[in-house]
Parts: sequence; structure tokens; C-alpha cells
Amino acid sequence: MRPALPLALVVSLLLANPALADALVENVDGMTLDERGEIVRFNGIVVSPDGKVVKLLKRGDKRPERLDWREDMKGRTVIPGMVDAHGHVMELGFRAMALDLSATTSLAQAQEAIRRYALDNTQRSWLVGGGWNQEMWQLGRFPTAAELDAATGDKPAWFTRADGHAGWANSAAMRIAGITAATKSPAGGRIEMVAGKPGGVFVDAAMALIEKVLPRPTPRDRNAAFIKAQDILLSNGVTASADMGTSLDDWMTYRRMGDLGILRMRIMSYSAGVDVALQVGGSGPTPWLYNDKLRMGGIKLYLDGALGSRGAWLKAPYADATANTGLPFLTDAQLLNSIARGAMDDFQLALHAIGDRANKQALDAIEEVSDTYKGDRRWRIEHAQIVDPADLLRLGKLGVIASMQPVHQTSDRMMAETRLGPQRLAGAYAWKSMLGSRAKLVFGSDFPVESPNPFVGWAAGFTRQDAQGQPFGGWRPEEAVSREQAWRAFTVDAAYAGFGEKKFGHLAPGMRADFVVIDRDPLLASPEQLRQTVVFETWVGGERVYRRGQGAAAGAR
Amino acid sequence: MRPALPLALVVSLLLANPALADALVENVDGMTLDERGEIVRFNGIVVSPDGKVVKLLKRGDKRPERLDWREDMKGRTVIPGMVDAHGHVMELGFRAMALDLSATTSLAQAQEAIRRYALDNTQRSWLVGGGWNQEMWQLGRFPTAAELDAATGDKPAWFTRADGHAGWANSAAMRIAGITAATKSPAGGRIEMVAGKPGGVFVDAAMALIEKVLPRPTPRDRNAAFIKAQDILLSNGVTASADMGTSLDDWMTYRRMGDLGILRMRIMSYSAGVDVALQVGGSGPTPWLYNDKLRMGGIKLYLDGALGSRGAWLKAPYADATANTGLPFLTDAQLLNSIARGAMDDFQLALHAIGDRANKQALDAIEEVSDTYKGDRRWRIEHAQIVDPADLLRLGKLGVIASMQPVHQTSDRMMAETRLGPQRLAGAYAWKSMLGSRAKLVFGSDFPVESPNPFVGWAAGFTRQDAQGQPFGGWRPEEAVSREQAWRAFTVDAAYAGFGEKKFGHLAPGMRADFVVIDRDPLLASPEQLRQTVVFETWVGGERVYRRGQGAAAGAR
Repeated sequence: MRPALPLALVVSLLLANPALADALVENVDGMTLDERGEIVRFNGIVVSPDGKVVKLLKRGDKRPERLDWREDMKGRTVIPGMVDAHGHVMELGFRAMALDLSATTSLAQAQEAIRRYALDNTQRSWLVGGGWNQEMWQLGRFPTAAELDAATGDKPAWFTRADGHAGWANSAAMRIAGITAATKSPAGGRIEMVAGKPGGVFVDAAMALIEKVLPRPTPRDRNAAFIKAQDILLSNGVTASADMGTSLDDWMTYRRMGDLGILRMRIMSYSAGVDVALQVGGSGPTPWLYNDKLRMGGIKLYLDGALGSRGAWLKAPYADATANTGLPFLTDAQLLNSIARGAMDDFQLALHAIGDRANKQALDAIEEVSDTYKGDRRWRIEHAQIVDPADLLRLGKLGVIASMQPVHQTSDRMMAETRLGPQRLAGAYAWKSMLGSRAKLVFGSDFPVESPNPFVGWAAGFTRQDAQGQPFGGWRPEEAVSREQAWRAFTVDAAYAGFGEKKFGHLAPGMRADFVVIDRDPLLASPEQLRQTVVFETWVGGERVYRRGQGAAAGAR
Repeated sequence: MRPALPLALVVSLLLANPALADALVENVDGMTLDERGEIVRFNGIVVSPDGKVVKLLKRGDKRPERLDWREDMKGRTVIPGMVDAHGHVMELGFRAMALDLSATTSLAQAQEAIRRYALDNTQRSWLVGGGWNQEMWQLGRFPTAAELDAATGDKPAWFTRADGHAGWANSAAMRIAGITAATKSPAGGRIEMVAGKPGGVFVDAAMALIEKVLPRPTPRDRNAAFIKAQDILLSNGVTASADMGTSLDDWMTYRRMGDLGILRMRIMSYSAGVDVALQVGGSGPTPWLYNDKLRMGGIKLYLDGALGSRGAWLKAPYADATANTGLPFLTDAQLLNSIARGAMDDFQLALHAIGDRANKQALDAIEEVSDTYKGDRRWRIEHAQIVDPADLLRLGKLGVIASMQPVHQTSDRMMAETRLGPQRLAGAYAWKSMLGSRAKLVFGSDFPVESPNPFVGWAAGFTRQDAQGQPFGGWRPEEAVSREQAWRAFTVDAAYAGFGEKKFGHLAPGMRADFVVIDRDPLLASPEQLRQTVVFETWVGGERVYRRGQGAAAGAR
């Protein structure tokens, strides 16, 4: 059979490019892991015209004679593009497009920020954002709709409080939502009243009164959010990410971006539930699309909630809420059914499990289906935050990938101590123990819940310290992994977890030339220095896709 | 900017194919139109490795010296692949996968066909089909559920009557639908009773009682239906088709097929309504995907129903139902709003209009928006069956494409005379008058409503006669177009109507090498002979994708 499709391109480009030759990225202080996790140093990268690594050059190696182009990196540090094993691409973009009020320290400052945002976003039908805190403003009360009107005029606006438990609407938003003095507060919520009328702030369940009239994002909004997210990730040195919970609209956005040549990062997509995976992939995962930039290979399922809201499903009650163990999202039968529907079509399963009971449910289910669905399954547990030590060894035995987020540990540690008490911390954020069980440990950020900056996560991975270096010596430091292991979890193994290990995650002949030019040696930097790493340039498939100071799109060679 | 994506393929294939050269399809009796509709004859096609026509060779022309492969056609006739300007790809496949009982002449014969179909389709959860007619069976009554059970056993089954106005369910289907002796017939429908119990046949609105429990097709079903449809089209010599009313699930199917390299024909997709177009294309039509095999470029909107069911919207009442003028599907404001939503994002609009009032509504709307949405819009009216002579000239003036189906005229002529009476036939199926108005006339089949065989449509286009050669001399023969014009409407102009005229629709240097090898000269054949044309081979993009006797998939070089 004649391979008509690629040949078409071959010839048209052969004619356009009569002298195709390799290219050279030279004069670099390069370091990468190999596929076994050993450090390899190099000083140049020979890049093929199709954007793959031909060879890593060492001092004294012969340079190719004929070159299509060469790029002198002037001795700067080059490492493989970082891989985030767990993020939410579209949410990152949408959050970045909304107005962040978390740095405002007065109502007047917030109003000014909103006024500017409104001027910069005249095409938006609603103004939305979040992060305000009336305590930070030293206001002593909630802000009012009238105070928001003063900044927005008649355009509807909705800003959520820093904790997500309240929202601030203006008069236009309340009018559109049909809120009047007669509107009753719903169960579990409260409409804040001012002088007998709805004052603009809606607490908890009352927030839905406004949110139900927020317009759905248009495809144009989604395109813009994707581009924003991609810019952020590339500027942070992230060249590939798992997208954990891709909706159908998310997927259509990625395809539009791929079709138009705007997709520059690599996305390992996990569908939000079984139905989207079947609708997209039909009878199995999609192929790698757009030169290994996009693939829907798996399904994300939620087994429980989060620790902070006591939604994580625990074996024993919360230490600080002794009648509560959290709740499962799925019955065992529902979980098994969903896993089977995905696995029978060779989709990978990524199970969100935070509490020890949810992790046990995940392991029980994987154990039960493992006899039926054999082969290279790479079952994943996302977060695996609290695991009963009695269950820990099961991860390795079942070949489960523990997909964990170092910064969650540093953000959550005090809260986790409160929720769990001292007895249950042995299996909490237990990275080293996971490795000890011979589970594959992979790292991500859970952006936008945490910053997508992988250097912060990398540092946390071997220090168990937060951005301020707290606590001294690290929290439960026996669960830290080595610097090299944390790097591996953010590169080689994160790619493996998404079935991408033959394509990206490290630099070696035949791999995609995805790399980052940074301002320091991450293997020598102190943890504090590592967190401050500056990304000068990001390259994907032999193309420069980000250059510091020029933005992502402007960086293309 | 470095074109990283195609270069990747260039190099990997350059290495695999060190000696890329053109290929030759030789010893053909070739004929094509050029872009102006003039006939060009040739004896060989030089095909580039990317599947385009390099040159059409005439006797005495020098053959290329170095050839990658050559194919001797042994003097057979070669014409460009036929282009259908209006079809329904997925419906063609689904209908072909269902059991067709229209040829059965007795209940026993139907039972035997159903029994065989059940054995051949054990993986199906329901047995479905249609085409039965108890009059043809000389049964004198409707068939019963028990009679269907005898063929199906306990697997649910549902077969619609030839006219689509009744359905025959078995006991399993009625059990699943919850039908009991107590179930009431809905308004506008009737449950046929046998000995005081539902007998198995459901008439008109009662059909929905069963149809609501029919399972939705799975993605696997959709893949299978697509492959079936593509096989049928390629075996009929159709290499490109408009898909008029692509649903999101249809689109996902085409993408799966494209991603997996199974998409071999070309599809000009028109979304079913505005929302799908926006969800797929976002801010405009998709690019041509998969080497010009797929593009969503437009939106299909329905302005009215059909003539047979008196749903077509007429200016004056039906001749055979004098209180009825049919009904519009959209108000003028709704239509203008939908057109604007599509046109502002550069989607083409294809407006289904059958009755003269609906055609006027379409023309009024196009006239109204033409000032705002300028440029190369190619507004289409689909069917344009009954147009008031007073409106005919407006098509040309507004640059409208009349997308018509010759076989509808031959199938409908008696019914049209009854519905319209003699006074209104002047603007009915008025192909020649359309051309006279300087509208672009393009032809399609409306498969699966009619057969997708384009040679039948071509013959009807210049004879106004049906497959039996009726009526003698043709129906209103003054509206026939020339043989060459009908060919053009099924090739060059059908491609133009889908913005594909620079890619396919005729054979010339730079065009995709889409052609058909047939058993006779279509420019010399009598209409009867033309209708009987046998397709030996079908080629798309320089690849043989169908060979008679081997099926479509087996035909690939």
C-alpha cells in the first residue's frame, strides 16, 4: 500500500527545501537523564529537520559538516523540557484570563483594578474574577453591588472571594439573574442584605443564583484560554503536560489549535469520564496527533473529594470532625463498571484518590480488573495523598503509577495534620515509601490549583520545604526523594505515565528535541536557587516556542 | 518560522524512500473537463508521489524517464472522480447496515431474511431495518410480534414499513419499551391490537413508543457505518461528497477515520445547525484536513420540509390540499440570526428550501445579509425544487448556488403535478432556467434518499427521464441541461460549491489525482447505457481505493 499522505508532504517540501540538513544547538551546558534515570552531560544537540535529536555532542565530538542552521547558546544551561504529570490546561487559561484581586489591599485598589480590566476587555460580555478578601481590605464588612457598579458601570460582573465561598455581584449581574428583595436565600446559602435589599454578596449555595446565568465560554474564548495556558506553561519550561479531565469542548479546542498549527506544547489528554473518551477515540485511544503533540490515551475518574473540604474519603473519621469520614463518589460497582468500559477499549485509567479509603477502593478495583485487562495498562492513582501503610505495598505489586504533586504537600501540611491527627501521617504524601513499594512515582503541579512552575515542585520533592524554606529540615523529611529522583519524576517518568517515554521526557537520539534554556545548573543550585530558576528559552520539537521577554508566540524561530 | 510539522515527515520518509519519482497511469481513454467546463482528452496521467496530477499526457507526449510505478489501464475509459454536491454520509452507512426488506414478497421470505440477518449480526443489541409492505406480501393484515419473534427469538427488533409510517416490533422490543395492554395510543398514532393486546405494529406517532428505547449508536457502530458508506460511494465512482448536516458525532467519526488513515474519500462537511459549526471550527471553517480529505466549511439550515408530506412551504395552497401551504421551519428573524452567526465567522450557508415560499424566504434573507457579509460567500440553496419564476432571476443576481438533485425530479414528477397542479410547474426542478438566471447549478443525489449512483443522476440531468426511460421525451424537457453541463454540475461545479475547485473535481496539473476507471465512454453512451456504467476502479489522490470485485478497502495499491 502506498503511503499517500506523508509522501504528499515529502515531495512538496523536497521541492521547497532542496538541501535539507541537520541543525546544531551548540555551546550549551547540557544535562539530561537517560531512559534509566542516569545523568548524561553534553555540549551540543544535533537536531534533524523533523525536530528530533540526532545526537548529543560532547566536547571534542566532531560537528556535522553541513548544517541547515546553528544556534549558539553561549554556554547556558540546557535541560529537557519539563513534563507535568497532572494539570488542567484549559482551567489554567481561564483562570489566567480572569481578574485576580488577591493582591489588592483596599477596596479602592480593587475597584481600580476592575476598572482597568474592564477597559482592557471591552469585548467580554461579563467581567469575572476572584481572589478578593474584605479582611485584607480592612473593610469590616462585605463590599456592595453599588461599590462594584462604580468600577464596572452597567456591564455584569462577578468576583469570587479568595476562599471560593462567596461571590460579589454588581447590579447588572443581579438584574440578569432576576435577584430582587423577594429572592429567598437557598438552603446552605445566604444572600447578604443591605438596607433590606440584596447587597451584592452571595454566600455558599447562594452563589449559584448568579453563576447559573454566567455565559458559557464561546469557542473563541476557549481558543484564547488555551493560548494563554500554553504561553504560561512554555514560559515555565513545561513542554508537555497531562490534561486531567479533558471535556469534549476542551478536546475540540486542542484540535482546532492543532489544525491551525497553534498547538506547540504536548498534551497527554485524559478524558473527563468514560463517555468523552468513547466519543473522541471511539474504539480506543487516539493516535499521537500533530507530530506527537496530542493524544487522548486515558480516562480520569474521581473517587473522592479533597482533604481541605473534608471530602477525601477516609478509613477512620477526620481528627477534626469525628463524625465524618468523607464520602465516596462512586460505588464499587460503578467504579468497576467505568474501569471496565474504558479498559476494554485499551484506555488508560487515572483514578483521583486522596483519602486512604479512596486509595484502597482504587487498589481493590485495580486488583479486581487486573486479571481481565492484562498487558501494559499503567494504572494511575492521581494524588494518592493519604495511603494506609497497609496498602502501600499494593501499589508496587499491582504496577500502579503514583501521580503526586510535591507542592500539595508543602501547601497542605498544617491542614493535613489537623485533619488527620498525628497517627495517620505515615502514609501521607509518602513519596519515598511509594518508591520503596516499587510503584512508579511521577510528579505534577495540579495547575492551576498550584503554580505550574516545575522548579518549585522539583525543589519541594527533595526538601519537603515550601517556598519560604519552611519547615526547617523539611516536613517528615524521611519521605523526601533525591534531587535526581524528583527530576526524573518531572521528566522521564512523567512521560512514561502518559505513554510518551519514547517521544519526550529526556534528550537522546530519536527523541523529540524538547528542551529548556535556563540561567543556572539545577543539579548544583540550592533548593532556594532552584525555585528561582529563570527560563530563557523553551524549545519543542527543535523549534524555539518561547523566548523570555518576547512571549511564547513571538519566540518561534 | 521553521515549518516543523511537515519537515518531520519529509525527512523520515526521505530516508525511507531515497528515490522518489513520479508515477504513470498509462494507456487510458481519458476525458475530463477543465476549470471552464471544456472537454479535455488524454491518454496518460503523470502522478506525483504526493498524489497530484503532474501532467495529462496525450498520444505522442514524452513519457517521464524515471518512474516509481506505472499502471497500464489497457485502454479503458478514465474520468475524474464524481462529486456529489448533496448527500448524507453517515445515514447512507446506517441505512446500508440495517436490513432492507423491500424486496421480500412474502412474510415467510421476510422472516427468513431477518433470521439470516440476526445470525450475521450477533454482536448487535437490536435488530433494525425497514422496507416491508404487507400488501406486497399479500397478507391482508399487518404482521404480528409473534411472527417477528419466530425469526428473532428474544433479541429486540424493530422494522419500519416501506412508507416510514408504521413500525413492526417484536415481544422483546415491546417489553423493553414497557408496552402492555394498558398502553394508550398517543394522539396522532395507533397501537395495532390483536386479540385485545398490542399486536406488534405501531402506526405514525405511536412509533415513538418503541423508537425512544432504541439504543444510540456506539462510536464503534459509527465507525462501521462510515466505512460502509465510504465503500458504497467509492464503488459508485464518487470520490468527494458534501455531507449535508454533519452532527457532532458524525464529525468525531470522520476525525477518527482521518486520524487512523481510514478516511479515503473527500468530505465537504456542512454542520447540522450553527452550534456544531462553532463547536468544531470555533472562529471559522476548519482547514482542509488529511490532505484535502475533510473540511467543515459551512452550515446547513432547514427552511421547510418536503413536497411529498406537504411540508414544503408554498406561496399558494397545495393543489391537493387547498387549506394547506406547508409551514416555515424558521421565522425570518430566526433565519437571519442563524445566517449572521455563521457568516460572521465566514461559514458558508446551505439553506434547504423546497417550496416556492421557502425559496423566497432564502433569497430575501440572502439579499438582506449580502451587504454586510461580502466577499466570496457562495450562498447555497439546497434542492430549490419549486421556485416562483418571479424569483428565479434573483438566484443569479445574488450569486446563489442552486444545489439540485436530478433524480428527485424523476422520482417526484407525478407527485409534484398532484401537489402543485399545472400552473406552478414552470419553476419546478427548473435546471435550465437556473442556468439562464446565471446561478451556478450543481448536482447531487441526496443519498440515501436516492441512490448515490452519479451516472443515474447524470443521465437524468440531460434527459429528464427516469431509470425506465419514462416519460418518453422527458418531463418538461425544456428544463434539461446538456450532457456536458450535467457532467460539470457533478464534478467541477460541485467541487466549487464546496470550495474545493482548486483541489478536485477535474483532472489538470496540480489537482488531486482522483479518477474513476469505467467500462464505457460516458460522452457517447446512450442515456440508458450511461445509467448502467460499471465502475472498475476508483482512485483518490493517486491511490487505488476501490477495485471491482475486491471491495473498497481491498483495492488500495
